[in-house]
Amino acid sequence: MDETKELEERFAQLRKDLDEGNLHEFRDEFLEMHIYEQGQFYQSLKDDQRLLVYSYLSPKELADMFDVIEEDNEYMKDYLAEMRPSYAAEMLSEMYTDNAVDLLNTLSKKQIAKYLSLMDAEDAAEIKELLHYEDETAGSIMTTEYVSIVANQTVRSAMYVLKNEAKAAETIYYIYVVDQEGRLVGVISLRDLIVSDDDAMISDIMSERVISVHVGDDQEDVAQTFRDYDFLALPVTDYDDHLLGIVTVDDIIDVIDEEAASDYSGLAGVNVEEISENPIKAAGKRLPWLITLLFLGMATASLISHYEVLVSEASILAVFISLITGTAGNAGTQSLAVAVRRLAMNDDKSNTFFATVIGEVLTGVVTGAITGLTIFAIVAVWKGNPILGFVIGMAMMCAITVANLAGSLIPMLMDKLGFDPAVASGPFITTLSDLTSVLIYFNIASMFMNYFIGN
Amino acid sequence: MDETKELEERFAQLRKDLDEGNLHEFRDEFLEMHIYEQGQFYQSLKDDQRLLVYSYLSPKELADMFDVIEEDNEYMKDYLAEMRPSYAAEMLSEMYTDNAVDLLNTLSKKQIAKYLSLMDAEDAAEIKELLHYEDETAGSIMTTEYVSIVANQTVRSAMYVLKNEAKAAETIYYIYVVDQEGRLVGVISLRDLIVSDDDAMISDIMSERVISVHVGDDQEDVAQTFRDYDFLALPVTDYDDHLLGIVTVDDIIDVIDEEAASDYSGLAGVNVEEISENPIKAAGKRLPWLITLLFLGMATASLISHYEVLVSEASILAVFISLITGTAGNAGTQSLAVAVRRLAMNDDKSNTFFATVIGEVLTGVVTGAITGLTIFAIVAVWKGNPILGFVIGMAMMCAITVANLAGSLIPMLMDKLGFDPAVASGPFITTLSDLTSVLIYFNIASMFMNYFIGN
Repeated sequence: MDETKELEERFAQLRKDLDEGNLHEFRDEFLEMHIYEQGQFYQSLKDDQRLLVYSYLSPKELADMFDVIEEDNEYMKDYLAEMRPSYAAEMLSEMYTDNAVDLLNTLSKKQIAKYLSLMDAEDAAEIKELLHYEDETAGSIMTTEYVSIVANQTVRSAMYVLKNEAKAAETIYYIYVVDQEGRLVGVISLRDLIVSDDDAMISDIMSERVISVHVGDDQEDVAQTFRDYDFLALPVTDYDDHLLGIVTVDDIIDVIDEEAASDYSGLAGVNVEEISENPIKAAGKRLPWLITLLFLGMATASLISHYEVLVSEASILAVFISLITGTAGNAGTQSLAVAVRRLAMNDDKSNTFFATVIGEVLTGVVTGAITGLTIFAIVAVWKGNPILGFVIGMAMMCAITVANLAGSLIPMLMDKLGFDPAVASGPFITTLSDLTSVLIYFNIASMFMNYFIGN
Repeated sequence: MDETKELEERFAQLRKDLDEGNLHEFRDEFLEMHIYEQGQFYQSLKDDQRLLVYSYLSPKELADMFDVIEEDNEYMKDYLAEMRPSYAAEMLSEMYTDNAVDLLNTLSKKQIAKYLSLMDAEDAAEIKELLHYEDETAGSIMTTEYVSIVANQTVRSAMYVLKNEAKAAETIYYIYVVDQEGRLVGVISLRDLIVSDDDAMISDIMSERVISVHVGDDQEDVAQTFRDYDFLALPVTDYDDHLLGIVTVDDIIDVIDEEAASDYSGLAGVNVEEISENPIKAAGKRLPWLITLLFLGMATASLISHYEVLVSEASILAVFISLITGTAGNAGTQSLAVAVRRLAMNDDKSNTFFATVIGEVLTGVVTGAITGLTIFAIVAVWKGNPILGFVIGMAMMCAITVANLAGSLIPMLMDKLGFDPAVASGPFITTLSDLTSVLIYFNIASMFMNYFIGN
């Protein structure tokens, strides 16, 4: 609390300095702040205040701050647009390449070309290189600011290289060793470098078993390697082992957050990464799903409509519709969550498919049998009607088993077909399970029709 | 693929060396592997093979590997139990303190006391200190293996300290500066140390604005600070600013994974972190939820039962029960997900409460009105019955609005009362929304009872 207040006061002072033209005070105080706080401050400014910032600070001084402002910030484009194009281009080339690329990727092709044409040929080439990589691959999240050395030198000379490159590199805590063709042959951590003798040869102390990822690898797999090995950075290579770049742990945290939000959104049937404060906008984002499912729900309604005669003769059947569809929907959601989770955790997907679907169906049989027996007992006592209890119990058991089948089979199939399994959302499974549950329920009830109508 | 195969072959060779008693070959090959791979290998062994490992490798050599084996591995206790107690105690004291504590926390108090009594007094004291911290706080995930120095020395002498402590510290990439009472006064990164002049004073180059967390802070808040500032480690202090330990980014990745899994589990009504292959066990974990919700569902059934006369006279009403409950349930799930997500993202929770609930209700009115109009049009045309369409449409709109209210209000209230909002699970919200939807539907239908019964 105190820290937040202190920060607010500092921001107020900075804004005052800005408005009153206290150039030196502003620069001293601003540049001493952590880049995250610089970003918070910058985003708290009004349009005309930001224009002053661009004249008080060099593109290079602003670049670090832009590295930490979220690239999905909706105002990012406006910030770039209000800078002089040459200022923006210089700032982009001073940013870490991966962040500059993320930022450029939100712009139109024409704008990207404009900024690239204003940069150094070398910087522009590096950025162009990274712009090619497909979204959600190792290539799309890697940066080219790493430190690489050759093996045939001493620790002392390697430390000398490091000191020179430390300012520009995104991390200096792993140093990658390459051969003359630029192929990755080893790695050494700064920790090992520091505890080694100054005259030791890099080739003797480096680790030759380098864990690396391929440039086309899915970013989720890269994140899994980070989890397994607890690395701070991982080298990225092409298929001929040439070192292309590195992925750092801070980018992996973003990947993990993104994947978690996407799984969660899938289960809920709403994109929680695009939360809007405006009810009209929020409704606009949710309606497509709701209306689509409404039409699927209409199929269930017409199915019940088909059995309207049975219902009018035995209205007691209507009492249990929502209980059966609801319970089966709950079971199906559980299966869906387990299947999606297992897909996310397991690399060897061929075994997972049948094991998961069969496991879920068996789990459905067990939970269905117990839930069915429970409801049989309740209905038999409550309504004094064991036959009705049997119909409800049997329907419950079958409906739960089928819901578990759908909940596991559908995401597994989506995955096989190359879609994100999380797209098979919770609401979709429950709505589909409503349909199958009603079908099962009325079919079983029909077998006992004479009994119901006779009563 | 090739890498996996290569690893499998290496493991096979290692097992052969183990079985045939090739001590040196085994040690050379094993100690050259990455600790994560050592862990994979160790977990692939049979009981008697593991016993050989304990005689081939020292507790210290095994400690690094145990640092990366998941603490929630179910066999962890067995591994410890099969070692000689003094061997296990030495290994525990060689592990990073935070990991040793995690591991000990899975044991009984008696066992913990046994191992502690077999350790060095100093190691035991460090572990005891950490055992006290509450679960899910910064204290529970911090380690005490950090590097701290005093400000009044040169870069050269600081580097000397660092070289000596590098082996034992969990990270050496941030060095924390403390005063004589052990209060945190500054921080310097190894990167800054390396690029600085050897004769520069630490007090001149350190950053005095240290971002730190309190030992009692929630681990989720610590994770958020990591996200904001892109740190690799954060210092943990008590309320008088004394440095107690550090949290490293690899532990934060575990925290982020845990929190994501817990939110996801909440929405699904099943704990996805305890996935069992055995259908009976899996069923045992899911049934408590399903049966509890079955009883809540019974309330909905008895409510419908109350309107049985109306249903038997106007069986058309039964056709739309599942459509209304299903759609409202879908909308409620969306609201729940948005509310839980907003709670997770926002620190300043007082503003969030009303803004979120009111926002969700308004969103419910908008989505409800549009969905209601759609179903009105469909029913009016399909059944040629605008009055029935009006009843269904009105009920749909009210049910969606109430579902959004429940979906946002319940998690917000849970949070206010100090519970994890994710416990208000998706299935609970949909089952509750079934009840309110049916209530709304039949109440509106009752107002038009004369019309329906007249028909």
